[in-house]
Amino acid sequence: MSARDVIHNLRELAARTSNAGGAQRVAWGPVWREARAWLDGTVGELGLGAAADAAGNRWITLPGDSPRTVVIGGHLDSVPNGGWLDGPLGVLTGLEALRRYRDKPRPVTLAVADFADEEGARFSRSLLGSSGASGSLIPDTARHLVDRDGVRLVDALAENGIDLERMPEAREALLARDPRAYLELHIEQGPVLESMDKPAGVVIGAYGVERHVLRFTGQAAHSGSTPIAMRRDAFLAAAEAALAFREIARRHSTPEVGMVCTVGQVAVEPGIVTAVPGVCEISLDQRAIAPDILARALADAREAANRAARNNGVSVEWRHVWRIEPSRFDPRLVELCAEAAREVTGHAPRLPSGPLHDAVEMNRLMPAVMMFASSSRGLSHCREEDTPEPQLEQAIEAFLRLVDRTVALVAAE
Amino acid sequence: MSARDVIHNLRELAARTSNAGGAQRVAWGPVWREARAWLDGTVGELGLGAAADAAGNRWITLPGDSPRTVVIGGHLDSVPNGGWLDGPLGVLTGLEALRRYRDKPRPVTLAVADFADEEGARFSRSLLGSSGASGSLIPDTARHLVDRDGVRLVDALAENGIDLERMPEAREALLARDPRAYLELHIEQGPVLESMDKPAGVVIGAYGVERHVLRFTGQAAHSGSTPIAMRRDAFLAAAEAALAFREIARRHSTPEVGMVCTVGQVAVEPGIVTAVPGVCEISLDQRAIAPDILARALADAREAANRAARNNGVSVEWRHVWRIEPSRFDPRLVELCAEAAREVTGHAPRLPSGPLHDAVEMNRLMPAVMMFASSSRGLSHCREEDTPEPQLEQAIEAFLRLVDRTVALVAAE
Repeated sequence: MSARDVIHNLRELAARTSNAGGAQRVAWGPVWREARAWLDGTVGELGLGAAADAAGNRWITLPGDSPRTVVIGGHLDSVPNGGWLDGPLGVLTGLEALRRYRDKPRPVTLAVADFADEEGARFSRSLLGSSGASGSLIPDTARHLVDRDGVRLVDALAENGIDLERMPEAREALLARDPRAYLELHIEQGPVLESMDKPAGVVIGAYGVERHVLRFTGQAAHSGSTPIAMRRDAFLAAAEAALAFREIARRHSTPEVGMVCTVGQVAVEPGIVTAVPGVCEISLDQRAIAPDILARALADAREAANRAARNNGVSVEWRHVWRIEPSRFDPRLVELCAEAAREVTGHAPRLPSGPLHDAVEMNRLMPAVMMFASSSRGLSHCREEDTPEPQLEQAIEAFLRLVDRTVALVAAE
Repeated sequence: MSARDVIHNLRELAARTSNAGGAQRVAWGPVWREARAWLDGTVGELGLGAAADAAGNRWITLPGDSPRTVVIGGHLDSVPNGGWLDGPLGVLTGLEALRRYRDKPRPVTLAVADFADEEGARFSRSLLGSSGASGSLIPDTARHLVDRDGVRLVDALAENGIDLERMPEAREALLARDPRAYLELHIEQGPVLESMDKPAGVVIGAYGVERHVLRFTGQAAHSGSTPIAMRRDAFLAAAEAALAFREIARRHSTPEVGMVCTVGQVAVEPGIVTAVPGVCEISLDQRAIAPDILARALADAREAANRAARNNGVSVEWRHVWRIEPSRFDPRLVELCAEAAREVTGHAPRLPSGPLHDAVEMNRLMPAVMMFASSSRGLSHCREEDTPEPQLEQAIEAFLRLVDRTVALVAAE
């Protein structure tokens, strides 16, 4: 049974590229290059070869009767101390699809993409290779990046034969392939499928994100000599706001698609036991799948923060950090994905993706969809990352059925 | 007018012992010794002398017809970058009282105490000299103390001729004086009197303190892939608890005496924008003047923290940090203080002291009371610390009237 072969390959790659802390395939480094060399060997056994594009992505192509191409993607790179599934699951399941199609009639071309530096773990710029391939990468915004040792991104790229300025050229090469659909299998990295006891889920799109830092400014004061009524406590204002933000997320959630918001960073000044906080800075990360809901939730959050500030006699300033539009996957491919999941696993739960993926970049160029495999305890980016083998096999089989359906769809275009 | 002389003396001391950052009279160091040498000179001009006790406090005594003694206290030491009033106001106003009584009949003895190391700024042990004089100091609890340069307290004491082990012997020497009342004038270090536009206030006692650290433990999770309903957010539990703590303080406050509570320290883990906090640690500092209210407020806070934890699916652990019983000043002296304040300033607002003072230690041995002078913007422990001169003069005059009343009271005993 071929899903087992995929799992076997994943285990072999993990054994070659992990240490006691987990996977160490950080993009542009030696372990990542080793992983790619191992992939070349595996591809070679299929009688195929891998070719690089200008953005450092590698492409394995199985030509068919038509140049119209179904692209299957993933990434071999990992975060430091990462898991065995985040990234390689997509690439190696794609390879299994090529293996299955190698000896039978192929109405269309299939291609597997191993995207470079999906994680952005070293230079804090995720989706680097796929944004080169989609053309959304603006070299000016990445030229200044350095890692924590002071090594420049441009030098790390050059070490791998890549010129940052030319990375967006990968877009033309990709378009020349006549790409018609993009498919990606990834682990969920969240607890939803596991909690429903479902091995696979249909990803309807990726959340848009509004990210801000809020600075509440009141007045530091002595904890003993300042009566409650005379305080301007910046922390209590932030606490009130954070609780209101959660209610806003609940209010804008539906049974079908939730929205989320998170206050992940909190810092108070002066930060001593005997002082009322004069300043409190918090981060706010809001995510939703519908642009209008995201916009309304942000407006609601501004109002709630102002109210919390007013209630506590403090002021609040917003600093915009980052924003990305929601990305909706192709409705036809979402339906095919649901059919495939239902036929193999009996269920087709739909969910948005919280994390970003290369599929979001590919969705700019062609219809795209993702399938999620469930994640044990929702854990990812750590060596405990896992999916029990029976569920993983089912997800792989469901995804391979999605490939078949998509090949048929593109053949009929 | 002698209150002006006190202010003149305060300005002179500040000029000699401050730099651009503020007062630098940190106990046991050279600037503090300089301040004491300057005090010796001022005392000498009165034809009096200062004597040290075993705890490093200095005593200036003006004998009277009876050995029964009225003690007036304060401290010359300051925090680093401190103000001009915190401490010296008490000592130099006491000196002014001696000057006034020097040439007239004195039914009782008067003594001014310059307590050593009230602030605990260098070794984090406040009220060191006065706790030696009260006998509450347990040398075992201070023997291990070192400053941030690694200098041991015992060595800093030895440099000043003090033996930590013998500091509690100062108690016997003080009791041998037949002390009958303790009086102290200090700035409020809070905003209450200024907000009422009153120059002086009657201090009814010092808050007791319950200090704890609370650790909320939930589950760290990805901000994008974890639905609100599946989160165990430790920060939101802490935020809910902190807001409840304020309500508890409000509930236990009366128009006469408020209680206060403060969450001054907040730390979340992992503390990144994209992660739901798995751990949140906060400090809780609760203060009240009545022991039963303090105990009830603590019980209420435990209940509120448990409820907040439960509401958010997290657990909470308490770690006790510090506790001190409330200290009520002597009712007869509080009445005398109110009369003196009312006669001189027209008002006698009563308030508790948030910060601790040497008067709390003296209150263990004899009836004690404090008078507060208003603080501009409630600021203290900084060079901006101030009281406008007209208000300061009134507070000094009111305190000197309190001395007169107390001398009469003790004379009649």
